[in-house]
Amino acid sequence: MQTLSVNLGDRSYPIHVGAGHLDRLGEFLKEAGLGGKVAVISNPTVAQLFLDPVHESLIEAGFEVTPVLLPDGEEHKNLASLTVIYDRLISERFERRSSVVALGGGVIGDVAGFAAATYLRGVPYVQVPTTLLAQVDSSVGGKTAVNHKDGKNLIGAFYQPKLVLIDVAVLRTLPRRELVAGLAEVIKYGIIEDPVLFHLLEQNIEKLIERDLELLTQVIVTSCAIKARVVEADEREDDYRAVLNFGHTIGHALEAVTGYKQFLHGEAIGVGMVKAAALSTQRGFCDPRSFDRIVQLIRKAGLPTEIPGNVSMQSLIQGIEVDKKAAGGKIKFIMCEGLGKTRFHWLAPGEILAALRA
Amino acid sequence: MQTLSVNLGDRSYPIHVGAGHLDRLGEFLKEAGLGGKVAVISNPTVAQLFLDPVHESLIEAGFEVTPVLLPDGEEHKNLASLTVIYDRLISERFERRSSVVALGGGVIGDVAGFAAATYLRGVPYVQVPTTLLAQVDSSVGGKTAVNHKDGKNLIGAFYQPKLVLIDVAVLRTLPRRELVAGLAEVIKYGIIEDPVLFHLLEQNIEKLIERDLELLTQVIVTSCAIKARVVEADEREDDYRAVLNFGHTIGHALEAVTGYKQFLHGEAIGVGMVKAAALSTQRGFCDPRSFDRIVQLIRKAGLPTEIPGNVSMQSLIQGIEVDKKAAGGKIKFIMCEGLGKTRFHWLAPGEILAALRA
Repeated sequence: MQTLSVNLGDRSYPIHVGAGHLDRLGEFLKEAGLGGKVAVISNPTVAQLFLDPVHESLIEAGFEVTPVLLPDGEEHKNLASLTVIYDRLISERFERRSSVVALGGGVIGDVAGFAAATYLRGVPYVQVPTTLLAQVDSSVGGKTAVNHKDGKNLIGAFYQPKLVLIDVAVLRTLPRRELVAGLAEVIKYGIIEDPVLFHLLEQNIEKLIERDLELLTQVIVTSCAIKARVVEADEREDDYRAVLNFGHTIGHALEAVTGYKQFLHGEAIGVGMVKAAALSTQRGFCDPRSFDRIVQLIRKAGLPTEIPGNVSMQSLIQGIEVDKKAAGGKIKFIMCEGLGKTRFHWLAPGEILAALRA
Repeated sequence: MQTLSVNLGDRSYPIHVGAGHLDRLGEFLKEAGLGGKVAVISNPTVAQLFLDPVHESLIEAGFEVTPVLLPDGEEHKNLASLTVIYDRLISERFERRSSVVALGGGVIGDVAGFAAATYLRGVPYVQVPTTLLAQVDSSVGGKTAVNHKDGKNLIGAFYQPKLVLIDVAVLRTLPRRELVAGLAEVIKYGIIEDPVLFHLLEQNIEKLIERDLELLTQVIVTSCAIKARVVEADEREDDYRAVLNFGHTIGHALEAVTGYKQFLHGEAIGVGMVKAAALSTQRGFCDPRSFDRIVQLIRKAGLPTEIPGNVSMQSLIQGIEVDKKAAGGKIKFIMCEGLGKTRFHWLAPGEILAALRA
């Protein structure tokens, strides 16, 4: 097992990465100073696979466990699911020293984290991500949120977990499509920060998809370390943290416009990264060779690279405008400068539209 | 005009107290570094009295103003009102640099503050409290929340405003009953921290109720200074800040049990303080002479001092148990030790019940 740490003063926490240590969750919670009541927020699919070992481990460590299952899917990342959690925490008389465990993918982590951030003005929570996407991205850094009907993650809080437990072995049962979607965020880290990681992905993308646990552990540790460094530098996304949104401006809009049904988050980010790299190349920030490598790797991973014909560019631009990165009517767009380097560039929505149409 | 400050590192902010400086709001917002879009959250009663000068002042200072009116009353301090605000902020394309002004009493301040804390994971907000209660208590310290059907303030966040503007002149139009309710919190500061303030209240309670603006300014400044010191010492209520809940354990439960209809918050706190002082005296923490002075002052202010006959003690205890101050099944009860000093004492709900029945 490897342990990274996210250093944020009195909000610091460890990330434990390993294979097969899910059943040590109770022990880690105790180590983190937690005790008493704990709610495990999950969904039926994940619960069927992993709730038993988690539940048992928590009971063995002396916790009083309340499982709370939410329906599966991005469309349930909303205030209604939040209400389900609040109601249970209240009826089970959860107190300020009680805690919340998010056992699942990004939706569960975001909703459970926001519930923890706001129940009694904040109770401790722990992330146990069960998808690759959640392991390398959403479980680290304290962004919690629910969606609004007009946009993703519009309601939320910055609220750090007490610890993150990443068990790579859970990826064995993850559907291939979801694993590939998770690789989109790993590719993103390569593009924005780490040419060595990018090269490793170019060499080993098939092995990763075949779930080589050793390689998966390696790219997860590298990804989490990059994310931790970015979050440490700018926890509340006042500036630099926005670099993590590379490919997300267009990606988020694409998800929204297609009703969160056609694309998994990582798939939309695949398209978004290709478009962001194309725009970077058009504007002269990215060299054509790096652009080709980016498109090739995204395609090789099996991720989509094009905006489908049934999506109108105008609706996409409207989606971008409502996205929270807008400020003063301009969009803070993240351009890549080849591999491993980025720059911010303010664009009017119309300029993005022109580039998408080109 | 007097300016106090709440010192919380990068979350520090000023409290401007004066009479008749409501129309300088725009100027203060600019001074605080705010600009662009601003939503003024209020209710129809307050808006009719004060929205015009506030609106004009913001426009003059170059802001783009969106008024959002919520229905009046504690029963609207809920997720539904929050949704009204989110919807407006989104439809008006509010961005991370946009801001929120809470123009109203405690309900408006708490809901608007929580909306600001959670919209786009946090936008700046400003408190312009228009009731005495909000001026001396809820507008300072960054507690934001909405109620759950099973209890008050169960969903919320600690989120500090960028500034607080207290215009004592707005109290001229405040209904007498609400002014008196606000005095309950002022009396509380005297009991927990400041015998001199307590004595001043004993001497001048009638003049305060007759709205002597000079005296009101004096007690508001003293109250805010006490609150600021407590919040600086323990922003997230890990321990000491709970002293501000003197009288609130029973008071909150009384409000909940009577459906937030029979008592104003300050009135319930009046009863709660008498009962807390009685319990403190029974347990030997408070001398009988101080107890008498506390009861006399609360009565002289015109606040209720007794639990009404139609409220069952059992339901009151259930209300206390769900209150967020519970931990490990015991209640962190704030006892007064005469005037100006307090101590925490852990009590089982049954022990409180026994004392209430005595």
